[in-house]
Amino acid sequence: MTTLAKLALPAALIALPSLGLADDAPVAGVNAATDTVFILNSLLFLVGGILVFWMAAGFAMLEAGLVRSKNVTMQLIKNISLFSLAAIFYYLIGYNLMYPLGTWGIDGVLSGVWGPGVLEAVGVTAEGADDYSYASTGSDFFFQLMFCATTASIVSGTLAERIKLWPFLIFTIVLTAVIYPLQASWKWGGGFLDAAGFLDFAGSTVVHSVGGWAALTGALILGPRIGKYNKAGKTVPIPGSNLTLATLGTFILWLGWFGFNGGSQLAMGTVGDVGDVSRIFANTNTAAAGGAIAALILTQLLYKKPDLTMVLNGALAGLVSITAEPLTPSLGAATLIGAVGGVIVVFAVPFLDKLKIDDVVGAIPVHLIAGIWGTIAVVFTNGDASLGTQLYAIIVVGLFTVIVSGIVWYILKATMGLRVDEETEINGLDMAELGMEAYPEFSKG
Amino acid sequence: MTTLAKLALPAALIALPSLGLADDAPVAGVNAATDTVFILNSLLFLVGGILVFWMAAGFAMLEAGLVRSKNVTMQLIKNISLFSLAAIFYYLIGYNLMYPLGTWGIDGVLSGVWGPGVLEAVGVTAEGADDYSYASTGSDFFFQLMFCATTASIVSGTLAERIKLWPFLIFTIVLTAVIYPLQASWKWGGGFLDAAGFLDFAGSTVVHSVGGWAALTGALILGPRIGKYNKAGKTVPIPGSNLTLATLGTFILWLGWFGFNGGSQLAMGTVGDVGDVSRIFANTNTAAAGGAIAALILTQLLYKKPDLTMVLNGALAGLVSITAEPLTPSLGAATLIGAVGGVIVVFAVPFLDKLKIDDVVGAIPVHLIAGIWGTIAVVFTNGDASLGTQLYAIIVVGLFTVIVSGIVWYILKATMGLRVDEETEINGLDMAELGMEAYPEFSKG
Amino acid sequence: MTTLAKLALPAALIALPSLGLADDAPVAGVNAATDTVFILNSLLFLVGGILVFWMAAGFAMLEAGLVRSKNVTMQLIKNISLFSLAAIFYYLIGYNLMYPLGTWGIDGVLSGVWGPGVLEAVGVTAEGADDYSYASTGSDFFFQLMFCATTASIVSGTLAERIKLWPFLIFTIVLTAVIYPLQASWKWGGGFLDAAGFLDFAGSTVVHSVGGWAALTGALILGPRIGKYNKAGKTVPIPGSNLTLATLGTFILWLGWFGFNGGSQLAMGTVGDVGDVSRIFANTNTAAAGGAIAALILTQLLYKKPDLTMVLNGALAGLVSITAEPLTPSLGAATLIGAVGGVIVVFAVPFLDKLKIDDVVGAIPVHLIAGIWGTIAVVFTNGDASLGTQLYAIIVVGLFTVIVSGIVWYILKATMGLRVDEETEINGLDMAELGMEAYPEFSKG
Repeated sequence: MTTLAKLALPAALIALPSLGLADDAPVAGVNAATDTVFILNSLLFLVGGILVFWMAAGFAMLEAGLVRSKNVTMQLIKNISLFSLAAIFYYLIGYNLMYPLGTWGIDGVLSGVWGPGVLEAVGVTAEGADDYSYASTGSDFFFQLMFCATTASIVSGTLAERIKLWPFLIFTIVLTAVIYPLQASWKWGGGFLDAAGFLDFAGSTVVHSVGGWAALTGALILGPRIGKYNKAGKTVPIPGSNLTLATLGTFILWLGWFGFNGGSQLAMGTVGDVGDVSRIFANTNTAAAGGAIAALILTQLLYKKPDLTMVLNGALAGLVSITAEPLTPSLGAATLIGAVGGVIVVFAVPFLDKLKIDDVVGAIPVHLIAGIWGTIAVVFTNGDASLGTQLYAIIVVGLFTVIVSGIVWYILKATMGLRVDEETEINGLDMAELGMEAYPEFSKG
Repeated sequence: MTTLAKLALPAALIALPSLGLADDAPVAGVNAATDTVFILNSLLFLVGGILVFWMAAGFAMLEAGLVRSKNVTMQLIKNISLFSLAAIFYYLIGYNLMYPLGTWGIDGVLSGVWGPGVLEAVGVTAEGADDYSYASTGSDFFFQLMFCATTASIVSGTLAERIKLWPFLIFTIVLTAVIYPLQASWKWGGGFLDAAGFLDFAGSTVVHSVGGWAALTGALILGPRIGKYNKAGKTVPIPGSNLTLATLGTFILWLGWFGFNGGSQLAMGTVGDVGDVSRIFANTNTAAAGGAIAALILTQLLYKKPDLTMVLNGALAGLVSITAEPLTPSLGAATLIGAVGGVIVVFAVPFLDKLKIDDVVGAIPVHLIAGIWGTIAVVFTNGDASLGTQLYAIIVVGLFTVIVSGIVWYILKATMGLRVDEETEINGLDMAELGMEAYPEFSKG
Repeated sequence: MTTLAKLALPAALIALPSLGLADDAPVAGVNAATDTVFILNSLLFLVGGILVFWMAAGFAMLEAGLVRSKNVTMQLIKNISLFSLAAIFYYLIGYNLMYPLGTWGIDGVLSGVWGPGVLEAVGVTAEGADDYSYASTGSDFFFQLMFCATTASIVSGTLAERIKLWPFLIFTIVLTAVIYPLQASWKWGGGFLDAAGFLDFAGSTVVHSVGGWAALTGALILGPRIGKYNKAGKTVPIPGSNLTLATLGTFILWLGWFGFNGGSQLAMGTVGDVGDVSRIFANTNTAAAGGAIAALILTQLLYKKPDLTMVLNGALAGLVSITAEPLTPSLGAATLIGAVGGVIVVFAVPFLDKLKIDDVVGAIPVHLIAGIWGTIAVVFTNGDASLGTQLYAIIVVGLFTVIVSGIVWYILKATMGLRVDEETEINGLDMAELGMEAYPEFSKG
């Protein structure tokens, strides 16, 4: 199929019998070279998508390792459920909201309901929707879904050990059906932030800061865990129950990030694209390494003892930092951008504790603060970036996410209640809420 | 080596002496476009194959997490050994039995021994054998091997905590060398079920129900674990020792399933094929999500407490349910098909307990019952499917597997004994049979 | 962006300011078929690279599972730090040392510093550098980096539970910046071992034996753990704390090895190459299976009880054994080559103990001894191999690694000290050195 035919395709797709995903390109096979480009682009989305799917397992393991054993089953059920809900509600509502007008042929709830008028009013124009016409719709949907789910995964760690299951899951539905897709459309759906020249290659702001802002808003409304800050105002360390799991989770996330950043090249069918994907892989890796080593050295210098959880979060912060621009930096610049992410984590974790914001796994430093840093750092290596525009987008997305999240959290607090009762929190959510321990044979004492 | 030299290489390869895997498609090199199709098809098998390989790790973690800690080492050694035996015996015997006549060039035991006459007599014709000529033999072998090993992995969980190691491994050899390949040839080797119009895209029946039937037969002959059903006839819950592992195993299986179902498209070299693979990925994912959420909501409604192990098995049942037809359903239909799988698990687990069939990890509900459901569900979205033929195949494959498995289990019981003695079972298989605990520093008490 | 615009992109890239990774092959865009070869070759490096990256997680889990719980946090921090340091120092120094003259455009420290004269003097010629011109530089760098990191990962397990963090990490820097790249250039950089006809497809010698020699040298200088050999000279078994982790690590390594060996075909853009990659996958898998089953049967025969850790190391030894030549063996030969690896492990582990060489995880039998075996075994299936040349290379690489490693270990011992004090070792490195337990809620007693 030629490119021209592809561009004409969306119109034809609307007329197809209603399937979940439109049939791809029956006309194809006319031109072998163009076909190959189409296949390789789709393949990038598919391989990238399964790697980002795998990040859901990474978040689950990281969080299960960093909570106390009495809350592990709850953290696991939250993680698998939030991913599943994201999969369903991004399909039903989110995808069409992000790439509107039903041109993608996904038979979600919104097709036909939302018209161009409504969507253009919130800054989303139809033109953006054709950007992916060179790959299969199914592969694009699959890839984009995983980004939406990642945003939701970020929230669960911060609010662990005290939030009730169902309000959390309802928030996840709103986040993945509406909050994430709407603001993502402003950049990736061809909306006003894209038009303004905002650059965010794989989503330091669009994905990571959004998850971080939603987590921060939730943490402020929910309050800290019992015992986290003592009467003298001091922070009481609450160590994670299983650091091998936390380390495994970090390695899983690192692995998945090659799909996250590499797949965001959105194409692999030309020599130039595969070369770019290759640089992105190398830069993503070295940024993570830079973040880990910066945290290792800094905790050695500050505390005389290297801190494994800081090293893990340092690597993750390095990954978030390079996500806004993994292509233009040199390897050296990528290492430094990642290293700054690692430094941010080491200072931001105790700083949040001073503010009595209880972030169980460190998701706010890693995803929000390093996400902001990464978005700003684009200006250092990409001549097309403007600091003003980057800051403008950070603020707009932040305000939107904080306000909408805040409203949702408050409604949930007022109606269902957000927090488990004190006895449940002290005894652990697993037995009280789920009647099931994660490690029943290894209980303390 | 220069690119030109690389391009000249295929010609040289033809002259190589006969090796384990046949030289690939010397004719292909003539046409670059055809070559690319061949390469991309092979690549799908390779990437799909490593993803399905990864499922072996998923089964190992799932099962290690759902048994008690005193039996974990045994469960681990069973899982790595069964995979290894499947790899060897599918090569030596199974692959040639499944795609007979030695056309694939694998130098297994059967080449030359079994002639077309013998194989045609059991319903296998030679025509099926050339179906894969558009991809490298090695990639096809690698991919098919992983399906055979998956079938064996299903059995080990059900029979955990009481079956002896060696009889179990001998059963694995028979299953992977003979039972699986023979019945798989009826559909995928171009046999009589294929000719009858039976549809089973990636093996809800051919893989999952066969593993499930073999497990069920074993469970009936082996009997339940000591203490699972008390004297009043009530079921005593025996919680798994490590739910983070069980969750990790579920995520691994979910990830691997993209290879399982997507790879079963068997081709990625055309625009239409990669579009189909994309839909399959999206449908597979949403079916798992549907199964997980159905089990989450249903256990909340039935028991007032969501049950993590049900959610995990719900996701897996969703995956099994979509496996017979992951291509034709819309995303909505796929979600519903998966959700029914989740519902099946929630009701089938206690139902099996009422029958005093002790299935340690829930493999019978997930792989057998949801496998039957998935095979039937094909008729809802694929106009070429006939309910009668689907039921016919389910029954034929079921009867064959139950009878042959039953004979093998009985022979093993009569000769070696299947079950460890009572003292060993109570004290745990790890110390008695292996002299090695999985968690020696964390022993109970 | 339309496809046409995409194709025009490479030309534009040339004008970009000098970046970390060189722009790729602007000339390639002329011919679609050639482009596709370039893309598929690069894709093999990228997919292979992320699989080998994943091996870093495998080593971390394997080692964390085989040490005692009091040393787990230390083992985790070593693993993530060594990988990160390898990423940085292979970029800064190693890659340019391995493929000299700066032709790859990596802006590492060495570009411009080392001239051809210096490098030719140590046997490295410039010609080797163009071998990869058919794939993107970034993808090649990414893939090669992971091999370097693997070499470093091998060392950490042997020296666990007694070596200090920082001297170990400094050794890692020397290993990944200098020792590994220099000897690797002798074979893979077109150096004198390559010229002599030495064959080592994916690095049984270049990677695995080098890691093994460095580990052995370190173990000899460091001495055994307190209590490993009692006053009567008997070996005291010190069981690993978490065999599920060790098994997970083994499965991860097995998975990653498909990238390790398959990616070492270095090309996937022709029918012949993808056929070779397919055979390599099949052979790699069956060699692992052979190693596992050999160890299973042998430990049953020798000790009357199968030994899980031997089965795991048997699988790994099978993988190392096939690494020097995963292409030419038949499936049967590959199974046997792997099985010999499994036998080696079962005999070498107690043999090292007799010599009072304390190798905590069995890395010396797996990577060094099976690596030597695999390098020799090339002569059985590859007519181009000469036993004399293989032995010559094994000895040269071994002597070089032992001597340089020995000097570095001695300098570190003399300056910083290599070993923690006795009290720290007895109480565990985690609390004394890091102030952080891996499983704080599950402490012994």
